[in-house]
Amino acid sequence: MKLNRLRQSFEELARFTDEGEGINRLAYTETERKARLYLIEQFERAGLKVRTDYAGNVIARREGKFPDLPVVATGSHIDSVYAAGEYDGTAGVLVALEVMRSFAEEGVETEHPLEVIIFACEESSRFGASTLGSKAMTGRLDPAYTRSLTDKDGVTLMRAFEENGLDLEEVHLAKRFQDEIKAFVELHIEQGPVLEKRGKSIGIISAIAAPVRFHVHVGGTADHSGTTPMDYRHDALLGGAEIALSVERAALAEHDYGTVGTVGVFSIQPGAMNVVPGATDLKVDIRGTNLESRQRVVDALATAVHDVAKARGLNIWMDEISSEDPVQMDSAVVEELKAICEEKGVAWIEMPSGAGHDAMNMASLCTTGMIFIPSKDGLSHNPAEFTSMEQIMTGAEVLREFMMIQAKALRSQV
Amino acid sequence: MKLNRLRQSFEELARFTDEGEGINRLAYTETERKARLYLIEQFERAGLKVRTDYAGNVIARREGKFPDLPVVATGSHIDSVYAAGEYDGTAGVLVALEVMRSFAEEGVETEHPLEVIIFACEESSRFGASTLGSKAMTGRLDPAYTRSLTDKDGVTLMRAFEENGLDLEEVHLAKRFQDEIKAFVELHIEQGPVLEKRGKSIGIISAIAAPVRFHVHVGGTADHSGTTPMDYRHDALLGGAEIALSVERAALAEHDYGTVGTVGVFSIQPGAMNVVPGATDLKVDIRGTNLESRQRVVDALATAVHDVAKARGLNIWMDEISSEDPVQMDSAVVEELKAICEEKGVAWIEMPSGAGHDAMNMASLCTTGMIFIPSKDGLSHNPAEFTSMEQIMTGAEVLREFMMIQAKALRSQV
Repeated sequence: MKLNRLRQSFEELARFTDEGEGINRLAYTETERKARLYLIEQFERAGLKVRTDYAGNVIARREGKFPDLPVVATGSHIDSVYAAGEYDGTAGVLVALEVMRSFAEEGVETEHPLEVIIFACEESSRFGASTLGSKAMTGRLDPAYTRSLTDKDGVTLMRAFEENGLDLEEVHLAKRFQDEIKAFVELHIEQGPVLEKRGKSIGIISAIAAPVRFHVHVGGTADHSGTTPMDYRHDALLGGAEIALSVERAALAEHDYGTVGTVGVFSIQPGAMNVVPGATDLKVDIRGTNLESRQRVVDALATAVHDVAKARGLNIWMDEISSEDPVQMDSAVVEELKAICEEKGVAWIEMPSGAGHDAMNMASLCTTGMIFIPSKDGLSHNPAEFTSMEQIMTGAEVLREFMMIQAKALRSQV
Repeated sequence: MKLNRLRQSFEELARFTDEGEGINRLAYTETERKARLYLIEQFERAGLKVRTDYAGNVIARREGKFPDLPVVATGSHIDSVYAAGEYDGTAGVLVALEVMRSFAEEGVETEHPLEVIIFACEESSRFGASTLGSKAMTGRLDPAYTRSLTDKDGVTLMRAFEENGLDLEEVHLAKRFQDEIKAFVELHIEQGPVLEKRGKSIGIISAIAAPVRFHVHVGGTADHSGTTPMDYRHDALLGGAEIALSVERAALAEHDYGTVGTVGVFSIQPGAMNVVPGATDLKVDIRGTNLESRQRVVDALATAVHDVAKARGLNIWMDEISSEDPVQMDSAVVEELKAICEEKGVAWIEMPSGAGHDAMNMASLCTTGMIFIPSKDGLSHNPAEFTSMEQIMTGAEVLREFMMIQAKALRSQV
C-alpha cells in the first residue's frame, strides 16, 4: 500500500463538494453521484466488478478463487453532513480502495470473494433519516416512512431516487441474504477524543451504543422578576437546571460502562430579562452499550423529574421520543482484530462506539466488526476534522490483514 | 366616592384598545390619544383645568384656596404593554378621577391646589424605553437617546410626538421645578403576590428596588454527545445551570432584605439533541432596595462564575449591562400613610416595590410615596390581571385621605 496514493485519493474525492465551508456532499445529490462515479471508475481500474443496488449502494466485487463462497466485505459511506470534514465515512471507503489496489499490484488471490460497499445516505443531514443504504441492504427500511421523507427544499426522497436512476418502490430489492456475506468490517474515524487522549492507534469496537431519548417539559409560573419574592416562585429554568445536572451526575456514576447522558436541547419561555421563566423544554439523550447501565441513568432522570417537581411545585412530565438497542460486534472478529494489532505492534484499545454507523445495521445480517482510527481533538462533522495519513495507513494495514485472513489469501508474494 | 361609578370608569377606559387579546393601548398611539382625550373631558367635567405638557403628560389641576402654594399631586399612566390587563397604571388614574369627582360633589376645598398627572409612555413596550413622561417632567431625559428611539414598525419617537401634536425638540420644556410640588403619591396595583398571600389590603412602599443586570457568557466545547465520554466534556449548559442555581441560592439567603435574583434569559448553542452544548448565554437581573444585600448576590454570582469556570474547564465572562440605584420613598409620607390605614382599620404592610414606576423619577423632584393594592395571583402584564373594585376602593379611600391632609382640606361636610 502506498501512503502518497492514499493521500491523493483523499485529495481527489474532496474535490466533489458543493459550495460552502468544508465538504458539502449530501446524499443523493448530483455532487455525490459524481463522486460515486469517480470511485466506481477507480475500483474498476483496480480490477473489481462494480454494481449499484436498488438503494444506490455501490458494491465493488473482487472475485475469489471460489466464487460461490460468501464474500468478505468492508466499506463505509461518502455522503456528508453540511460543512463536513474529509474523513468521516470516506476514510473507510478510500482505505478499502487502497487495500484493493495493493491486492491487484501484488497479485493477491483469496479463496473468498471480497467486496467494498459504499453505503448510500448514511448521514441524516438531507432527509432527516440516517443509514438508509445499509437499512435497505438489511431489510430494515419501512416503505411508508421512506415515502414521507423530504429535504429542506421540499424534494422528496422518491424524487432524489429518480434523479439517481433509482425507483423508491423497488428499494426492498436491495435486501441481501445472510449466506451472501461471511463478515463485514467497517473502518471509521472515532469522532471522539478517546484514542488521541490515550495515545492509541486503533480502537476495536466491542459494541455500538444506542440512544434512548426523552423530552422533558418543565411547567412553572411566569412571574415578574422584580415583584415576585424568591420563596413564591415556581421557576422552570431552575427546575430544568437541576434535572440537567442530575443526568450528568448519574452518567458520571456509570463511567466504567461508558454510558453518557446529554441535555443537548434546553429552551425556556418566555425568555425575557424581567420575567421568571415559566416553562423549560429539555431533550435528553442517554446512550451506552450496556442496557442496565443506561437504564440506571434513565431511572435517575425519572427520579429527578419527580423530586424537582415536588420540591419546587413544578408540573413536569417526560416523554420517550425514541429508544434503540445497542448492537454487539462479533466477538470472534474483536479477538481477531486484537491479535492482528498485537502481531503488528499497534497500540489498540477495545471501546464502544458512541455514534451510529452502517455496521449497526449490517450486524443484523452477518458477522460484523468495526475499526476506529483517531480523530484529532475528537472533532467530527466539522471542516477541522483530521486524521493523519500515517494514522489512516495503520488502520489500512489492520483492515487489509483482517480481510486476507478472513478471505483466506494465498500469500504469493507477501 | 361611588363604587359603581368607579367600575364604570374602568369599563369605559377599557374600550380604548387596539386589536388583540386583552388591552393593547401602546404609548403615543391614536388609541392611547383618544383615551387621553376621553379622560381630559372627565377631569374637566369634575371641574379641573387640564393641560398637556411638552412630553404628552396630562396635568389636571383642581385649584386650591391659595393658588400660589405648591400642589399635592397624584397620578399614574394609561399606556399599556401588548396583551395587557385593565389595572396596571389605569388604577392610579381612575382612582384619582374618582377622588376628584367626590371632592367636586362634596364641595371639598383645599388650601393647596391638587393635581392628577397622567404620565406619558410609562411602559417600554413600544419604544424600548420606560417612564418617558416622568423622566421628561423631572429633567432626566437624554435628548440624544430619545432621538434614537423607534418602534418595531420603524416609527421614530420623534414622529410619534408629531402625531400627538408634540415636538421632541421641545421635550426639555416639560421639566418642572422642585417648589411646584409639595408631594406626589402614586397608587398602583402590586403586580406581585405578596399582599394577596399575606391577606393585606394596602402596601405602603418604603423604596423602589432597582436592578443591576449582567450578561454571563459560558464558553465550552461543542462535542458529539455519543462519542465524548462524560469526563472529557466541557458542557456549557451544565456550567450555566450551576450559575443560575447559585444566583437563586444567594438571593434566598437575602430573603429578609427582599432582594431577588432571576435568570430570565438562558440560551444554548448549538441546541441539537446529539451535541454537547458549546456555549450558553445568561442574562441575570438582581434587584433590591438594599444596596449591600444586592451586592452580596452580585458577589455570589461572580464567585460562581469563577468556581464553575475552574471546576469545569469553561471560559466564562460576565458583563454588567446596566445598574440603577434603588429609590427611597419619603419617610414622612410612609408614616402618614400608615397612620391613615390604622385609623381606617385597613390591613397594611410596608414593602418594597420590585418594579419601576413613575414615582421613581418623581422622587428626584419632590416628596414622594406609593400605595399598592393587591393583584390577584400576582398576575400583571396579562389579560388575567385583576383587582376587585372593593380592593381598589380601599386604595382610593387611603389616597383621598392622604390628599386631604396634605392639601389641608376644609372639611365642610365630611
